[in-house]
Amino acid sequence: VRTKPSRGRPRDPRIDEVVLAATREILARDGFAATTVQAVARRAGVGASAIYRRWPSGIELIESAVFPHLDALDVTPTGDIAADLRRFAASYCRLFGAPAARAAIPGLLAAYQSEPDQRRVLAERIGEDVRPAFRAMLASADPGTVDRAIDADAVLDLVIGAALYRTFIEPFTSREDPDDRVTGLLLRAVRPTVKEERDRAAE
Amino acid sequence: VRTKPSRGRPRDPRIDEVVLAATREILARDGFAATTVQAVARRAGVGASAIYRRWPSGIELIESAVFPHLDALDVTPTGDIAADLRRFAASYCRLFGAPAARAAIPGLLAAYQSEPDQRRVLAERIGEDVRPAFRAMLASADPGTVDRAIDADAVLDLVIGAALYRTFIEPFTSREDPDDRVTGLLLRAVRPTVKEERDRAAE
Repeated sequence: VRTKPSRGRPRDPRIDEVVLAATREILARDGFAATTVQAVARRAGVGASAIYRRWPSGIELIESAVFPHLDALDVTPTGDIAADLRRFAASYCRLFGAPAARAAIPGLLAAYQSEPDQRRVLAERIGEDVRPAFRAMLASADPGTVDRAIDADAVLDLVIGAALYRTFIEPFTSREDPDDRVTGLLLRAVRPTVKEERDRAAE
Repeated sequence: VRTKPSRGRPRDPRIDEVVLAATREILARDGFAATTVQAVARRAGVGASAIYRRWPSGIELIESAVFPHLDALDVTPTGDIAADLRRFAASYCRLFGAPAARAAIPGLLAAYQSEPDQRRVLAERIGEDVRPAFRAMLASADPGTVDRAIDADAVLDLVIGAALYRTFIEPFTSREDPDDRVTGLLLRAVRPTVKEERDRAAE
């Protein structure tokens, strides 16, 4: 039975956390298809209505559970662009590779095929929300390591794409040091051009 | 009723094509879950046994139907590395974005979660099989555009990852000229370093 939200009573934030944790647990253990609102409600010991009051559907619930805070990517820039890029790429691999996310992402992508607008949510959570911090990281890199004209968004696209590919298609075990290889290429991509170097030397 | 393969009778290759075309049709129209061996057999007008004689399961059938020949990527090198890289990246976007592939890939990724070994097949079909041609393309680039020490496999990883990301997560419409942006970064990544330039000038 769906109950209407009680007016005036503040939402208990602890329920949010219990429900999100139960969602991650079921995803990791039983997979995407088994992660229904009913199953989460049972596991969390709350009514389905308490979940629907917070998330309009199982899809939104799973999105929240799997991509909760992207500050977990830890993008505080150090100035050492090699270390920062590597840390950033590794964070995405951890994010996508966590058991709940690994179970959720193919299911979400399949669900978006019937609702293309909804895929915007995933794009925002894994990409858009991170762009400002990523731009700041490139901007604060040590002099001479990053071309000022570089398109930070395009670099971020490559970082996320590489992490997706590694998590879902290319097995980690088949290549050595994939982090170094990708980071090495990205460093080459962002460094100043020969012309920029010359211009700087002439200044 | 499953029939055993008739010994001595050669397999009719036309049946393969009819079955693969029916598989793509059902994927594009009805989605991954609806693309069962039974549904394909009905659509193709053959017995399920004729399909099982060729593919051990629906997963292998879908893999063959969606990633049939990667020579379709057209990787004949022209020497113009900018044009070649761009054409290569666009080919992957077309490959992943074709209606049958778009429907199949999330389903395949989900299926691989219970059978991680099988994901090797997808990795081979979309990546490994293309590596030699991709290496040849970088090797035949015009002088001065590609560092001889560049890791071609790592570049290919970035190309495939970017295409995956664009096809399944980032909507095409939200960015301008994504091909140019990614190709531009990849060109920067593969070009010779300042030091290599100097060494060449000193030769």
